Amino acid sequence: MTYCLGIKLDAGLVLASDSRITAGIDYISTYRKLHTFQPADDRIFVILTSGNLGTTQELLDCLRRDLDAGGERVSLRSVGYLFEAARYVGQTLFGIERAYDAAFRSGGVSGTATLILGGQIAGRSPELFLIHPEGNYVAASRETPFLQLGEFKYGKPILSRIANTALSLNDAARLALISFDAALKSNLSVGPPIDLAVLPRDTLQLSQQLSLDEGSPLFRQMSSDWDSSMHSAFGRLPHFPWET
Amino acid sequence: MTYCLGIKLDAGLVLASDSRITAGIDYISTYRKLHTFQPADDRIFVILTSGNLGTTQELLDCLRRDLDAGGERVSLRSVGYLFEAARYVGQTLFGIERAYDAAFRSGGVSGTATLILGGQIAGRSPELFLIHPEGNYVAASRETPFLQLGEFKYGKPILSRIANTALSLNDAARLALISFDAALKSNLSVGPPIDLAVLPRDTLQLSQQLSLDEGSPLFRQMSSDWDSSMHSAFGRLPHFPWET
Repeated sequence: MTYCLGIKLDAGLVLASDSRITAGIDYISTYRKLHTFQPADDRIFVILTSGNLGTTQELLDCLRRDLDAGGERVSLRSVGYLFEAARYVGQTLFGIERAYDAAFRSGGVSGTATLILGGQIAGRSPELFLIHPEGNYVAASRETPFLQLGEFKYGKPILSRIANTALSLNDAARLALISFDAALKSNLSVGPPIDLAVLPRDTLQLSQQLSLDEGSPLFRQMSSDWDSSMHSAFGRLPHFPWET
Repeated sequence: MTYCLGIKLDAGLVLASDSRITAGIDYISTYRKLHTFQPADDRIFVILTSGNLGTTQELLDCLRRDLDAGGERVSLRSVGYLFEAARYVGQTLFGIERAYDAAFRSGGVSGTATLILGGQIAGRSPELFLIHPEGNYVAASRETPFLQLGEFKYGKPILSRIANTALSLNDAARLALISFDAALKSNLSVGPPIDLAVLPRDTLQLSQQLSLDEGSPLFRQMSSDWDSSMHSAFGRLPHFPWET
């Protein structure tokens, strides 16, 4: 499995992914799932990938090939709106899935993938989309400021409590890390390093891009401070009426 | 769905369940999923149910009928060990599932159920089991002191942080409530009231049995205190190196 998270804020976007790839329980490897595209000065895209690794690798190859092809082809350089980027990426994804559909069906394997696409095109607002295996997309909004992929349940309660579009980029990055901490601690199919990207509104470049191993001092301190806070908060919970 | 939780402690057992029954998104009702059996003074059992409601209701009816039948029939009164109770309940469950198997298959519906069984028989230790749809069971242990059913992921991270067999019964009951709070806030298929039962070791009776609605002052205070603590803990997380 996988855990990927995007948070849309008034101040920009925060995106994060784990790096564990599993195929059964005895094939475990590490691949980055956070991919940045900056095909021109007026635009930046971050794509988070989950699902079949072959499908997502081929998707990224196709996106890069379309950029190489120059102006006559739809690409991340040619789209005028971020929703058009989502539609183009979704259609490219669905085309790859369809090409292998019969083979995957006969093997009883899922070849589908699900994506998060975030980014900004100059003169427009930053946007964040979840792209379904069918190729269509849904957007984050003020009421639903975060989108998740994969093993999302462990890390969701803290997001539901804290996430809102008024958070600063740094607070949202902290929130992403403790949400990942919950997923990492609970599920072996979510594994480090955690890739984290911060895209401030209207800058068209990532202000921070980190790859955090569990042993990294930053992640360790965040994780251990949070754990201590949980224990002391637990110790302060109200007593039951029958306790003296 | 459902969320059920059992915690095994040196001091006894804590068991909790939600009460929401869903069949699709437009049929939602409320049923207790925590059932207490005290067929003789020397024994007590608590069964938490998840899965097909018809199957679990028929199971409970069969368990009661077997108690009515008197000594010649295996029942919760006749078993000598708690694992025998788990085996008997598991076999009864599997028999019901098997009886409807063809009908369920043709309807494309799952008729299976999964259970948690906790309890004590005088002279033996309290035990806690998870009973699979196939009828077999696994036991809680010192290393794995809690067992969960249903929508377990939301409420698992806090259990993984805090649960251990040395917790007091009251602390484990508080832990159960905040684990349920996470599940209730995250998933519409988990719904109140929350039934909570506390079984102190060697007393053979429940010391507490609560049914807590979301509006109950006890649950509201626990939930709101926890939420405040999460927000202030979040505000105390360490800064990133690039923050001034």
